[in-house]
Amino acid sequence: MDEFETLDRYFRCTNYLSAAQLYLLDNPLLTRPLQRSDVKNKIVGHWGTVPGQNFIYAHLSRAVKKYDQDIIYISGPGHGGNFLVANSYIEGTYTKIYPDITRDKAGLQKLFRQFSFACGISSHCAPEVPGSMHEGGELGYSLSHGFGAVLDNPSLIAAVIVGDGEAETGPTACSWWGIKFLNPKTDGAVLPILHLNGYKISNPTLLARISQEEREKYFSAFGYEVFEIEVGTEDDGEKRTKSHKIMAETIDCAVRQIHKIWGSARSGIPVSVTAGSASVTAVNTAASPPATDENAIKYPLIILKSPKGWTGVQEADGKQITGSFRAHQVPVDMSKPEHLAVVEKWLKSYRPEELFNADGTVMDDILAFCPRGSRRITANPATYGGTEYRSLQLPNVSKYFVGTDEKRQDMLVLSNFVADIIKYNPTQFRFFSPDEAKSNRLYTPFDITKRIFNAEIYDTDEDLSRDGRIVDSVLSEHLCEGLLEGYTLTGRHGFFASYESFARVVDSMLTQHAKWLKLTKDMEWRSTLPCLNLIATSHCWQQDHNGFTHQDPGLAAHLLDKDTSVIRAYYPPDANSLLAVFNKCMNDTHKINIITAAKHSGFQWLSGTQALRFAEDGISVWDDFSTCAETEDPDVVLACCGDTPTLECVAAVKIIKPRFPELKIRFVNVIDLGRLSGREDSLTPNEYERIFTADRPVIFVHHAYPNIIRALVSHRPNVSRFVFRGYEEEGQITTGFDMRVLNSIDRYHIACDLAEYADAPQQKIIAAVDEFHSKLAEHTEYIAEHGIDPDWIVNI
Amino acid sequence: MDEFETLDRYFRCTNYLSAAQLYLLDNPLLTRPLQRSDVKNKIVGHWGTVPGQNFIYAHLSRAVKKYDQDIIYISGPGHGGNFLVANSYIEGTYTKIYPDITRDKAGLQKLFRQFSFACGISSHCAPEVPGSMHEGGELGYSLSHGFGAVLDNPSLIAAVIVGDGEAETGPTACSWWGIKFLNPKTDGAVLPILHLNGYKISNPTLLARISQEEREKYFSAFGYEVFEIEVGTEDDGEKRTKSHKIMAETIDCAVRQIHKIWGSARSGIPVSVTAGSASVTAVNTAASPPATDENAIKYPLIILKSPKGWTGVQEADGKQITGSFRAHQVPVDMSKPEHLAVVEKWLKSYRPEELFNADGTVMDDILAFCPRGSRRITANPATYGGTEYRSLQLPNVSKYFVGTDEKRQDMLVLSNFVADIIKYNPTQFRFFSPDEAKSNRLYTPFDITKRIFNAEIYDTDEDLSRDGRIVDSVLSEHLCEGLLEGYTLTGRHGFFASYESFARVVDSMLTQHAKWLKLTKDMEWRSTLPCLNLIATSHCWQQDHNGFTHQDPGLAAHLLDKDTSVIRAYYPPDANSLLAVFNKCMNDTHKINIITAAKHSGFQWLSGTQALRFAEDGISVWDDFSTCAETEDPDVVLACCGDTPTLECVAAVKIIKPRFPELKIRFVNVIDLGRLSGREDSLTPNEYERIFTADRPVIFVHHAYPNIIRALVSHRPNVSRFVFRGYEEEGQITTGFDMRVLNSIDRYHIACDLAEYADAPQQKIIAAVDEFHSKLAEHTEYIAEHGIDPDWIVNI
Repeated sequence: MDEFETLDRYFRCTNYLSAAQLYLLDNPLLTRPLQRSDVKNKIVGHWGTVPGQNFIYAHLSRAVKKYDQDIIYISGPGHGGNFLVANSYIEGTYTKIYPDITRDKAGLQKLFRQFSFACGISSHCAPEVPGSMHEGGELGYSLSHGFGAVLDNPSLIAAVIVGDGEAETGPTACSWWGIKFLNPKTDGAVLPILHLNGYKISNPTLLARISQEEREKYFSAFGYEVFEIEVGTEDDGEKRTKSHKIMAETIDCAVRQIHKIWGSARSGIPVSVTAGSASVTAVNTAASPPATDENAIKYPLIILKSPKGWTGVQEADGKQITGSFRAHQVPVDMSKPEHLAVVEKWLKSYRPEELFNADGTVMDDILAFCPRGSRRITANPATYGGTEYRSLQLPNVSKYFVGTDEKRQDMLVLSNFVADIIKYNPTQFRFFSPDEAKSNRLYTPFDITKRIFNAEIYDTDEDLSRDGRIVDSVLSEHLCEGLLEGYTLTGRHGFFASYESFARVVDSMLTQHAKWLKLTKDMEWRSTLPCLNLIATSHCWQQDHNGFTHQDPGLAAHLLDKDTSVIRAYYPPDANSLLAVFNKCMNDTHKINIITAAKHSGFQWLSGTQALRFAEDGISVWDDFSTCAETEDPDVVLACCGDTPTLECVAAVKIIKPRFPELKIRFVNVIDLGRLSGREDSLTPNEYERIFTADRPVIFVHHAYPNIIRALVSHRPNVSRFVFRGYEEEGQITTGFDMRVLNSIDRYHIACDLAEYADAPQQKIIAAVDEFHSKLAEHTEYIAEHGIDPDWIVNI
Repeated sequence: MDEFETLDRYFRCTNYLSAAQLYLLDNPLLTRPLQRSDVKNKIVGHWGTVPGQNFIYAHLSRAVKKYDQDIIYISGPGHGGNFLVANSYIEGTYTKIYPDITRDKAGLQKLFRQFSFACGISSHCAPEVPGSMHEGGELGYSLSHGFGAVLDNPSLIAAVIVGDGEAETGPTACSWWGIKFLNPKTDGAVLPILHLNGYKISNPTLLARISQEEREKYFSAFGYEVFEIEVGTEDDGEKRTKSHKIMAETIDCAVRQIHKIWGSARSGIPVSVTAGSASVTAVNTAASPPATDENAIKYPLIILKSPKGWTGVQEADGKQITGSFRAHQVPVDMSKPEHLAVVEKWLKSYRPEELFNADGTVMDDILAFCPRGSRRITANPATYGGTEYRSLQLPNVSKYFVGTDEKRQDMLVLSNFVADIIKYNPTQFRFFSPDEAKSNRLYTPFDITKRIFNAEIYDTDEDLSRDGRIVDSVLSEHLCEGLLEGYTLTGRHGFFASYESFARVVDSMLTQHAKWLKLTKDMEWRSTLPCLNLIATSHCWQQDHNGFTHQDPGLAAHLLDKDTSVIRAYYPPDANSLLAVFNKCMNDTHKINIITAAKHSGFQWLSGTQALRFAEDGISVWDDFSTCAETEDPDVVLACCGDTPTLECVAAVKIIKPRFPELKIRFVNVIDLGRLSGREDSLTPNEYERIFTADRPVIFVHHAYPNIIRALVSHRPNVSRFVFRGYEEEGQITTGFDMRVLNSIDRYHIACDLAEYADAPQQKIIAAVDEFHSKLAEHTEYIAEHGIDPDWIVNI
């Protein structure tokens, strides 16, 4: 028997299952002539990428068994989720999770019907599908997810199938660098497979229209050894023996090469892998000599050229389908009666009667082709967050609390806690940063570990190492965020620290992750995931010399528009509250936490105990800073959110108190913004009224754009009593305090607001307001002269 | 005299001016010993990238003169704006715009003092700086801006200086493909200069730590001919003759090569440029043979290796500065008294007394080195939007209006208008789309022109051409958006059409563009810019089979958080209003317009005349759809925004009217969302009250997340009377109508809302609500069976 006979039957079976999902409502085994009523009214979904992916999947399964090697499959192309459903169905994982989709004729009918059908399942590799940890609806993130998945997973290979359209996106284009951040001793490997099927929706792909030599150059520049092969050529016979042979040999070579890299790194022997040394007879195995390092490790990369829509309809309505952009989506729609016969002929070409028994069960040899148990790609625990949720080993946060007697850099204080978390969790905690770790004051972690860097290192470099655990050496928010996503999707913990404004570069990635979290939170067969934590620092109020381009505090609002049950936005005003919030996030699960934190030296307000309580409550009255007791009915509520608003509100009260000692100000601080929202655990009406009163005026000073506060409190009664202050997009090169003046969130503007509510003669109020304005003028004059804020501002 | 003597003096002068901007408050010519009081208190800004950029600038100026060639300079590295200020100051453009900064000693002092100083100027190539059309605060967009700038600018070379850190970003990594979208007959050229200075903030760069061979491979894969040279080597003498020689030869070669490409393409002779044929003795000029095409055009790309912080301080506090990451920002701060002497020695090393006359004027030979008039790089009109604003040749929009008697695909109707705009504006209008033009129904433009594609084209390809004007063949939102930005920043018109959800991939690019528009709108020396238009289509309500990942309608809200004077968000509910809005946007200036439009077949509501009026008003009462006259006091206001909300609100009124004929419903439609805001031209309180009444309940059904409506109306009195409906992040694979049901914006949910305000017996209201819910149940049953919406839903 041909070595690849069963593999090819498996391939045919998945192709049949995939095509049938697109079309069939009934007659699942084509046991009678196909009728119009057997076919869906409207065919939606994608075919172009499907057969190539089935082909890859089959060969990866072969490798899993041959090498007893854990492999997961990350599908970049986005559409064509029917392929993964087909493989999962054969492997039995689909029926295990959805018992209604039985492994017989009735189950097949349901399987086909539900696909891309109202109230059915998505046409992507959606979270519902076993084996998927990457939906691919928005293109560009498969590679970084793959690299994130294999970090600290030393025995795992993530095969990442990158679509040639996807490869044109920026996020993919920068993610090929991922190999520079792998440690072969302790990390697994990514096997990128560029699926060169030549076309996008209605255009050819760029990578398919440059020369093979240029493609080889492109990928080898990153440090890969490139294997380009072509399958599905016209001269290959019905059994596709040539195609299977070259693919099997190439995959064998790639896996063996990865094993060599691991073996050498792990036994301490320098790696010296010569390219293409295996028996591969790939189209292109021209070896590049090692570049700068005699012992350079070359990870393999496969370019798989296959006809778009391979095995599908060659031609319809006189136009070429297979091998053209017309195969991208639905190769043949049902708009013409004669298409029925075309579809029937196509589906029958897979000869379902040779693949399925009469009762609709898949034939035994095909079933036997699958790997066993959790080695099955769609059953691999890495794809569902691990067999169970593993929490972090956390040191007691109390150890890191600081006193309130001196100014501190909040991020620097946090970095002590982070360092110990790294120390106690050597295989399940990482942080990622785009060359900003030190700028963001994450210093102490470098006492524990270094930055991983797998390109040339000079003696003069600082804190770089081939086995560091901090990923900080690539200036790409996309890659950093994608790595963290891949890391947490496979059940590990970490955070991404970014300049606040540039975190917005990954707005859309966060959207997709939030959607994933929302959909998976009630799937019992998936593990609860660790939170995706993002620290937004170097924030808009601390950009004295970077100015306007570095000011966009809108990320939290962007996410709070989404399902708030999986989103938290925290604004710790000092170091202890930052520690308390970070500790809370490390213990929380299945959310995106956005923590906005200060890096410059600032005043400290809360003891550790107070901070823990504050982080728990999310919002509270700060009695020490109010001018009346919490039990008293205030004249005005002064609410703030964020470190800078807190500072200015404290200062405003200090200014106003001696001038209007009778004015009762209630000081409120908000650390968890979502508690104002309509989400499940938000303030109850009673709690809300206890804090904000029923009808007193409220001055709300927010760290970010005030629109989000307007939206959040609009759920509550009596909104018109609010005055909203925040970042109003007034930025220039100026001092920290002047920035606040420009945006009217400084102490004097707030004091003017407060004075309005004093029960005092109008004249006295006007005099106070005049005084505040002249103080501001005095300040402006001072900074124009000296370029810095005067002492009487810096010290409250 | 050495050929490069004056050039080197110019280089020294710009270096002195740049370094002095970082440090000096006084003593601008160092005519007396430097004192602490001469130096700024706090040194902020960047040095690392500056001398290399001054070097490039000087050599580009040389080329401008030598070839009488328009060249603009786009500075990618972000920081180091002092370099551009220095060059602009010598060229005289700075003083022309800021007469206060005179070209003498007093002016120098002001120039130095203002840089990165409170109330002074930014440390980037900010919009205030002559010659800048790219600020570079957020990294990654310089290349795409450059490519956009040269489209339809056939005599322009945009030298794009890409930082080696910037090159790690995704948006840059995908933008090297730009050459595939240039037409050498009608477009200018980009000369990319990768500035390989080796370090980022605190890490080495990846491109500096792979081999030269790998770098050459990387860039030649895109189709460039790569010239890698190194300058500032230790053995080069004080006059840097070797450095100047190799740079001049390389630039000469690059410019000549571009001229050859142009010459051949424009005279119809096939281009056959052999690589490295000029006299260049660059380190690496290994020519790649043409790849797939004998006549392949190879655009040059220069890799310039120079020491980071070149000419600066070699060492301080015992640590290497120049040539290390420590030169990135401030090489020597003023924290230690002994640093004063270090700075003085460094500044004096440029020998200012040889560069400036005693009165502070720059010496004549240096001034004479500059090109003349608008050939000066900082005076090139391309950098400020052209010498004057050039409006489009617009056909009369009325020609394209359609009747309201049948369903239409709004985007398809718009495409007729777009086609004619392309026809009438063959050199100043483009549209950009990431392989989505046809999916988004922009069909008709292909009757006028094709898609530009400068890689291999097959006979079977459709609508691809070497001289098409539509850029649609690369799947990258970043590149498309960047090209449009570059195109409009240089004074031309166009739009970017994207799937609504994936427009969010460029959230941050739009932020930066909005900031640019805000800052430049009052700069009289810059021309008014055309609008940046974005059509968000394939929107969240038309994603039946793509589902949840393709649903994010939050872009407009993201931008409306910013300065609303430069942002417009339009929601045309039908084809005629889409035409009217698009026409308005084409006539408007200096804004970002986000137009959300339908691509699927939909009902038509407005005549052309009504649509024009509606687009002008931005918000209006639709009398035909109300159940009472506009003059009457309604029981309830039903407001909607967007095509889907409009449809459902119309249907809701139709349902409710026969059941509660007495209920007075005022039907309001919002097409320009910002008119609800606090912006200058928003509704006056009277207008607002005339439309929304003073106190009637309002049901507001929005296309997008409702938070933005909550925020916008919070500026207005009596917010609690509003009921907000919109996209609530409830998505799955289902029918169009069912999506609306899931998010409660369908006709029956709205009818339930409306019934509440009927003056009818409670029993009757309950009966109606029950009836509506059973209709919904009936619908759900139908789609579960058939997979499509029933006729009684599709037809209202």
